[in-house]
Amino acid sequence: MATKERVAYVNGKVVPESQASISINDVGFLYGDAVFDTTRTFDKRIFKLKEHLDRFYHSLRYMRIDPGMSKEEMARLTMQVLDANLPLLGPHEDYWVSQRISRGVRGTGKPMVPTVVMECHPLPLKERAKSFRDGLQIVTPSIRRTPPESMSPRAKVHNYINMIQGDLEVKSQNPDALAILLDTNGNIAEGLGSNVFIVKDGALITPRDQFVLGGISRETTIELAQELNIEVRKEDIDLFDAYTADEAFVTSTSYCICPVSKFNGMKVGDGVPGPVTDRLQKAYSGLVGMDIVGQYLAHLK
Amino acid sequence: MATKERVAYVNGKVVPESQASISINDVGFLYGDAVFDTTRTFDKRIFKLKEHLDRFYHSLRYMRIDPGMSKEEMARLTMQVLDANLPLLGPHEDYWVSQRISRGVRGTGKPMVPTVVMECHPLPLKERAKSFRDGLQIVTPSIRRTPPESMSPRAKVHNYINMIQGDLEVKSQNPDALAILLDTNGNIAEGLGSNVFIVKDGALITPRDQFVLGGISRETTIELAQELNIEVRKEDIDLFDAYTADEAFVTSTSYCICPVSKFNGMKVGDGVPGPVTDRLQKAYSGLVGMDIVGQYLAHLK
Amino acid sequence: MATKERVAYVNGKVVPESQASISINDVGFLYGDAVFDTTRTFDKRIFKLKEHLDRFYHSLRYMRIDPGMSKEEMARLTMQVLDANLPLLGPHEDYWVSQRISRGVRGTGKPMVPTVVMECHPLPLKERAKSFRDGLQIVTPSIRRTPPESMSPRAKVHNYINMIQGDLEVKSQNPDALAILLDTNGNIAEGLGSNVFIVKDGALITPRDQFVLGGISRETTIELAQELNIEVRKEDIDLFDAYTADEAFVTSTSYCICPVSKFNGMKVGDGVPGPVTDRLQKAYSGLVGMDIVGQYLAHLK
Amino acid sequence: MATKERVAYVNGKVVPESQASISINDVGFLYGDAVFDTTRTFDKRIFKLKEHLDRFYHSLRYMRIDPGMSKEEMARLTMQVLDANLPLLGPHEDYWVSQRISRGVRGTGKPMVPTVVMECHPLPLKERAKSFRDGLQIVTPSIRRTPPESMSPRAKVHNYINMIQGDLEVKSQNPDALAILLDTNGNIAEGLGSNVFIVKDGALITPRDQFVLGGISRETTIELAQELNIEVRKEDIDLFDAYTADEAFVTSTSYCICPVSKFNGMKVGDGVPGPVTDRLQKAYSGLVGMDIVGQYLAHLK
Amino acid sequence: MATKERVAYVNGKVVPESQASISINDVGFLYGDAVFDTTRTFDKRIFKLKEHLDRFYHSLRYMRIDPGMSKEEMARLTMQVLDANLPLLGPHEDYWVSQRISRGVRGTGKPMVPTVVMECHPLPLKERAKSFRDGLQIVTPSIRRTPPESMSPRAKVHNYINMIQGDLEVKSQNPDALAILLDTNGNIAEGLGSNVFIVKDGALITPRDQFVLGGISRETTIELAQELNIEVRKEDIDLFDAYTADEAFVTSTSYCICPVSKFNGMKVGDGVPGPVTDRLQKAYSGLVGMDIVGQYLAHLK
Amino acid sequence: MATKERVAYVNGKVVPESQASISINDVGFLYGDAVFDTTRTFDKRIFKLKEHLDRFYHSLRYMRIDPGMSKEEMARLTMQVLDANLPLLGPHEDYWVSQRISRGVRGTGKPMVPTVVMECHPLPLKERAKSFRDGLQIVTPSIRRTPPESMSPRAKVHNYINMIQGDLEVKSQNPDALAILLDTNGNIAEGLGSNVFIVKDGALITPRDQFVLGGISRETTIELAQELNIEVRKEDIDLFDAYTADEAFVTSTSYCICPVSKFNGMKVGDGVPGPVTDRLQKAYSGLVGMDIVGQYLAHLK
Repeated sequence: MATKERVAYVNGKVVPESQASISINDVGFLYGDAVFDTTRTFDKRIFKLKEHLDRFYHSLRYMRIDPGMSKEEMARLTMQVLDANLPLLGPHEDYWVSQRISRGVRGTGKPMVPTVVMECHPLPLKERAKSFRDGLQIVTPSIRRTPPESMSPRAKVHNYINMIQGDLEVKSQNPDALAILLDTNGNIAEGLGSNVFIVKDGALITPRDQFVLGGISRETTIELAQELNIEVRKEDIDLFDAYTADEAFVTSTSYCICPVSKFNGMKVGDGVPGPVTDRLQKAYSGLVGMDIVGQYLAHLK
Repeated sequence: MATKERVAYVNGKVVPESQASISINDVGFLYGDAVFDTTRTFDKRIFKLKEHLDRFYHSLRYMRIDPGMSKEEMARLTMQVLDANLPLLGPHEDYWVSQRISRGVRGTGKPMVPTVVMECHPLPLKERAKSFRDGLQIVTPSIRRTPPESMSPRAKVHNYINMIQGDLEVKSQNPDALAILLDTNGNIAEGLGSNVFIVKDGALITPRDQFVLGGISRETTIELAQELNIEVRKEDIDLFDAYTADEAFVTSTSYCICPVSKFNGMKVGDGVPGPVTDRLQKAYSGLVGMDIVGQYLAHLK
Repeated sequence: MATKERVAYVNGKVVPESQASISINDVGFLYGDAVFDTTRTFDKRIFKLKEHLDRFYHSLRYMRIDPGMSKEEMARLTMQVLDANLPLLGPHEDYWVSQRISRGVRGTGKPMVPTVVMECHPLPLKERAKSFRDGLQIVTPSIRRTPPESMSPRAKVHNYINMIQGDLEVKSQNPDALAILLDTNGNIAEGLGSNVFIVKDGALITPRDQFVLGGISRETTIELAQELNIEVRKEDIDLFDAYTADEAFVTSTSYCICPVSKFNGMKVGDGVPGPVTDRLQKAYSGLVGMDIVGQYLAHLK
Repeated sequence: MATKERVAYVNGKVVPESQASISINDVGFLYGDAVFDTTRTFDKRIFKLKEHLDRFYHSLRYMRIDPGMSKEEMARLTMQVLDANLPLLGPHEDYWVSQRISRGVRGTGKPMVPTVVMECHPLPLKERAKSFRDGLQIVTPSIRRTPPESMSPRAKVHNYINMIQGDLEVKSQNPDALAILLDTNGNIAEGLGSNVFIVKDGALITPRDQFVLGGISRETTIELAQELNIEVRKEDIDLFDAYTADEAFVTSTSYCICPVSKFNGMKVGDGVPGPVTDRLQKAYSGLVGMDIVGQYLAHLK
Repeated sequence: MATKERVAYVNGKVVPESQASISINDVGFLYGDAVFDTTRTFDKRIFKLKEHLDRFYHSLRYMRIDPGMSKEEMARLTMQVLDANLPLLGPHEDYWVSQRISRGVRGTGKPMVPTVVMECHPLPLKERAKSFRDGLQIVTPSIRRTPPESMSPRAKVHNYINMIQGDLEVKSQNPDALAILLDTNGNIAEGLGSNVFIVKDGALITPRDQFVLGGISRETTIELAQELNIEVRKEDIDLFDAYTADEAFVTSTSYCICPVSKFNGMKVGDGVPGPVTDRLQKAYSGLVGMDIVGQYLAHLK
Repeated sequence: MATKERVAYVNGKVVPESQASISINDVGFLYGDAVFDTTRTFDKRIFKLKEHLDRFYHSLRYMRIDPGMSKEEMARLTMQVLDANLPLLGPHEDYWVSQRISRGVRGTGKPMVPTVVMECHPLPLKERAKSFRDGLQIVTPSIRRTPPESMSPRAKVHNYINMIQGDLEVKSQNPDALAILLDTNGNIAEGLGSNVFIVKDGALITPRDQFVLGGISRETTIELAQELNIEVRKEDIDLFDAYTADEAFVTSTSYCICPVSKFNGMKVGDGVPGPVTDRLQKAYSGLVGMDIVGQYLAHLK
């Protein structure tokens, strides 16, 4: 039976999303003291759920939160929520699929018990479609990505103010721009859910693992590049690299691979996508069994 | 009429706290993209609400969130929630009183509207009472307070992972310790809701404004010191300063002024509270019209 | 006798500006290995020439360039060039008046002899007039001001690429913005020839001397503030300070004092100029004997 | 026809060098807002002009200067100037051959048009000859190389004050020393036009690309080493590495490869050149078809 | 002839250890201006004396101390002292064997002559035995390892206050913990004579050479790993890496390889030693011809 | 009775200095794990012993070493050693008088007991006399003073390698120079037992307390300046400040106040001592009841 409203899992119950809520005393709300992970579907099929859950458990471990649940159980519940929501998707549509666990609710007088949430959210295909046609405009804000000695960017926690500030700063000058923050050494780090690659002399370069959330899409791209015999290096990238790159693109769960047209207003390469980006997009489409660019462009009409 | 359960204000409605919740799609939960401020009551009377709301609006401004409400309205609603909850307090008990505003709920297809919460929470007087008897044990963890170039500690936002990590690290070795983080220069910054003062040669020293959330209790302490003709300086404090201090204490909304007995295991001064700390605690009690130390110690019995 | 073309002094000769040139082997061109200073006229009268020359000789000393000329001689030649050029000024117009000395010309086979230039350049009153009407839009680029341990910003040398890069980055997003660079700690430093002040709770705050070229206009503003009993502090200013400031303005030789309307897109105060800025502009006008704002606004018509 | 004086190209004209000049209003002079590149001749034959022009265009791109000219045209004009100047060279002599482009001339009332210069300068073979006999004495000054987050050292711009300051500091104590600056992490960076290599356990080590102008001579040396099956690594080098190195040498357009005899007064290896340096010098000579060491030593007589 | 007391070599004489002393005017005492190196015996046989002396001479060179003695002579004297002391060892016992050279004695009115010491010290097998049974508890203190730009950790000098402070800080909270300091970037560096390895996805990772004293045991472990076809990488390791490692262990001259059970209180892997650690311990035992774990555990009884 | 040889106190005994020694197992030797303080005599009278002992006990506290002795006892023993040694002084001669305490001797099988030393050392008046005639030549080495987050410079411990390295680096280029290290921000810190002051526009400026060992001579100078109505500021000083200073001088226990003639080879002021330095030297002489400059100059003959 198809429902009219999406459902979500909250602490043992599957409820309509409009009723899916957490207490104002949940530390996931009070402090952002929660962990999450998000994969997506491709043509309604979930992508690399196992890899996302592995990463999720690393984040939980870093935060010293015991989820009280095995990865298998987590996967089962995720699929249950997804399956209930799939009928609501239209053609060319897909979901983000997320697991979220906060440390619990304060002030109950008892030890805190993790709050567990699983939910689906439609991908913003229409809003982002023109980026696939025109390329992304990357702008680096003046605020710096939080350094690893304060908080590791590798744990996916509910603390995004640093990147939100970067985004607000950049969008105040150019509402169409995507903020990519530099780290405290002035190297390119990452943006809201976004990893960056540049192409230089035929090789892919992306920031070192220590300074970014290692996206599954980033890893997937690296694997595809290796299969295509494209050299991949993880190393410090600064603005000189970006300004003299042959191509650049962003990877994320939703974007998969989206070309960059401008870096701080400076044109990157000759038109988007560049040839290496194009090869990787096609390989990505092959892997997921769906034309990832075509899906976005379909929403332009 | 006395109620059996505390109430809270959520988006225009006053509801029992057990029903006070926010959507799992609220960005205050998803990203900690929310701002708050917290004052307390002394013997049931609210303290410096105006100063707290001034600070609250600074935090909102830094985060570019328009609360859609004047400070006067905010104060009125705060008092309405507090008044409803006061009858539930027992003797020697008091409340934290908080305002919280998130940027809103994602995915509604409409511009985000701030989520507004006001709530009261009982002070943890019993849990913290022994700190007033024995003094606080401060330990500095190895992780550093997020630097201002990444996120200003002066805005009170729902992103506390940096300080929670410091706390987890310290408590893993000593569950009774209070974590105070160093900044990225190795100077003493702050802990979860806690400012630090040391006393050296009769003068008070506390970290510079740029590196800490400027607590109202910290400002109150500075004003009291000035009235008592105690010199106050805001400057960089490192471990050498801390290890050779004559006295040290912590200020926070709940603690007001609580003496420090040990700094990284090294005894501070001769017994707690030291003479300057004692004078300031008494002045604080005078200001708020209640014996702040006595209230805590009453819960030891 | 009025000339049709401005003249300049170059190495002992006063020549028409179109013929005023330096060798392609001059290290002032090859390496920017040259020092300068610039004052302006107010209603055709030169301003604080002595203070500018004092600063000029500090820059020369830092660069270990012996000008081979006393300050008195330098002043005399400056006035000679200025006097020759004054007749070319129209109403409401004024000059920048500069001294420049490079270390000399390479490859002559003899020890290098400094190249000395004195010249006048019309103030860009028309181009900048609207900033006095609408306020300046300050934007902080992602690149950082060169740190003092690499090169002191206090010496006025012909090496401006760092600030030009900041300007290019900012103008790529907003051609009307003025770039103000942060230092490597994330504090506000300076822009191309521009110092920043914020007004907070009635006091003026401007970055510490170590991190900026200490403008004569900056010093003049500080002296005027002190005469007006406005507190002035030189201390680290970060984005939180800027975003929560009551007013802000920029000082420079040409601007004198120009109000800031936006800081990274965030509105500063309520309309420009704010009340403190206004008082200081009026005091500045009084000091120089000319309505500094009026002069700019006259060019709007 | 042989001329008596070298010529240079300036903005479309080939003129005698004594008349080759730029306006005092050229921003290449005023701000060092210009870009250059320099190759040399070996026995009158130009070396790797294409590679130098590729690097030149990267510098132009970083500086957002459009040269308004193709690389082919640039190469053609370079050769025209070189050919005109070659007859002036004596035996054992060679030229530096440079292209320089500034952003243009200010204050013309029109958009700026790049100033283009091409020129030849005799190599300082006599002055530097004894370094090939005795080895270079490297000294690290206290000032640090400008960090990449302020200005990339990889763009060859007319802003050399940072390195000139290092040189002045070092030469104030030892006029024969060559200044090599450390970066802001304390690692060896570079000197005026000079890259550093150390030899340790048979391998070559040179600083990472991000922190130095990647010299063509440096790249040539790396390629030669690879042909000779000498391991090459680009990594951070600190004073401990330098003090315990088996050999060290400097590469630059003029030096090609010149051995280092002392590092901060500490003797490097046993006599110059060390065996690896010697092999590389010989390979360099083979590549350029001329005895590079012999040319220098010929000037000692 | 067996002695009842250990002997030591001091400046040309072999004396009973109770009489082995240095002047209070020795700069090795006054400033820690001395260099040392320490190997150990395995079942009474000295280990890699040559490698230790090579490292010792690097330290001497960095400190510009001329030992006035060849490595061969140093080795001969070391063996002479060791041979005299071996008869004093009981079963399951072994020695640390050290060479120490200070710059000399001040105030003699003559040029300083190095003070040379060679001595044997029994390994603390009993004190450390339980670490082999239960694993080491690593805790990172808040103070940072001295950065290479101040003093290279690669020279083994008599200046250990930085690491002693780290140890005092950590032991004040947990007397059983081993302090491992972070570097000034927040990456794991080293502890008192201790290098750290983590195991992740089957590969060994240890901090980069620049930030640690490159232990001979560390190098031995790397060589053993390569023989066992275990991948080894030297790269920055931060707390996220440590908290999500599969295994971790410490190497030192005395420990050889000792497993880590907890990192900042967080359990590492499933019981000690982990499988990779176990393989390496066994290989180490094979190399040194003695069961290294067994020797320690024998002292538990 | 006059002795022929100086005596020293070592662990409860007063012995001839030639027999005053510590064990090779003393951690003061092995690790520099010891603390000291040094005052001097003026015309045979000890100077500010109390202030030195206060500082000594702060150093002990920082190092968590319990001296097992009161300050009064420490003072009494110091005077006993001094009194025994005074008869050995010639005319115009004076002593450094030091207390030293190490944490003890390792490997005794018992808890460590502090090693206590008190000793007198003749001031190097002859060696340093010419600095009073000609001024000191300060040179800043490339290595940086250890940052406070690694080890506080305010504790006087037996770990001087950082400053010895600076000294070796500087003296390798100029044996007459005095090394003054910059801190990791590039500001002037301190040299071996030496604090720096500059004079600028009539005011004294010296580095902030956090970055230097706060010399008693430095404090004495500050007090004298205040009595002479000379403004004193403790703030960051960089090379620009030093290069443009009107005067500069160094303070230390032995130098008291010694003028600086050159800073990195750049002449400071017009001849030594400058007028402010001269006033302070005279005031110092007045305070200690002896012509401090005259004493040094007497040794030139």
